[in-house]
Amino acid sequence: MELYSGYINKLIEQFSKLPGVGSKSAQRLALHVINMPSEHVERFAQIMVEARKNIHYCNTCYTLTDKETCPICANPKRDHKMIMVVENIRDLAAYEKTGKYDGVYHVLHGAISPMMGIGPNDIRLKELVKRLEEEITEVIIATNSSLEGETTAMYISKLIKPTGVKVTRIASGVPVGGDLECIDEMTLLRALEGRTEL
Amino acid sequence: MELYSGYINKLIEQFSKLPGVGSKSAQRLALHVINMPSEHVERFAQIMVEARKNIHYCNTCYTLTDKETCPICANPKRDHKMIMVVENIRDLAAYEKTGKYDGVYHVLHGAISPMMGIGPNDIRLKELVKRLEEEITEVIIATNSSLEGETTAMYISKLIKPTGVKVTRIASGVPVGGDLECIDEMTLLRALEGRTEL
Repeated sequence: MELYSGYINKLIEQFSKLPGVGSKSAQRLALHVINMPSEHVERFAQIMVEARKNIHYCNTCYTLTDKETCPICANPKRDHKMIMVVENIRDLAAYEKTGKYDGVYHVLHGAISPMMGIGPNDIRLKELVKRLEEEITEVIIATNSSLEGETTAMYISKLIKPTGVKVTRIASGVPVGGDLECIDEMTLLRALEGRTEL
Repeated sequence: MELYSGYINKLIEQFSKLPGVGSKSAQRLALHVINMPSEHVERFAQIMVEARKNIHYCNTCYTLTDKETCPICANPKRDHKMIMVVENIRDLAAYEKTGKYDGVYHVLHGAISPMMGIGPNDIRLKELVKRLEEEITEVIIATNSSLEGETTAMYISKLIKPTGVKVTRIASGVPVGGDLECIDEMTLLRALEGRTEL
């Protein structure tokens, strides 16, 4: 918009490139930054550049870390024979927050999606297979329960099974506290298929 | 979270201080930035710092600008005798986008709110009164139609009326395209009160 100074427009443009930030939010965020104390803005900018510079992939599980090996892979108390495969780092963070999983992870950085032109070579699958050269007792596939996630899960299971390593898939079903009448049919059917004896 | 490197945690913290950004969005934004090309991150950081450094308030209407006087106040084609009073710059932008208002603005940077401890001296009211020393034909109050916005409108109208300057308030009513059954009672009553003859 012409009414804003070029400086503000450039900042709005930067914010609007971030995921989930529409033009209105970008405007709000840019104006907020303009109204922040100078030192805070400089600190924010510096943290951003430093984080980008110092963070890279863990050489084992491909999560983000500032060390060569991430704290999870470097932790001797974790069970390094159990690998949970996730699509991205946020999914790893979600399981890690439960505090109940003590194995390690493998971050694919994506899922197979023929529609989007993403094939098995575009995600960290070769790196997963390479890890199976070590002694692994179980690979838990925790990709999303979307079409892409399921496709990826199938692909991985076919890939790994010949090696004799146990491959499992996290359960799909009704979320805890979920109200049946608010849940989609696919989930209801999955929950029925996956029923367990009491 | 311990699972992220300190660099990422610091960046998440910075993002979560922005308005409307919760902890999940902050995580998503920080991880996005970490995955951006280094040059883009550096450019974003630089634009942020530069914008903050070069932007300040217009000496007349208190919108943000990199000049002493903003392009609207400096434009000889605008009607400088008509001042629209808005709470903030986003509201100014909203009216400016209509392209139909050719007067100038006055940005209060807030609204009177006894609940939040914001009084008349905490917003740019004195500066508005000062502008009335010039020849002004109309002051259009375009504060929000919230409790604070209405309080501010009332206060300004009482403040200006003795000077003999015409004071008007933008209309409140049913939004264009609005479905009556989805609109709250207060708005319906306002629309009824403000009815005009056809």
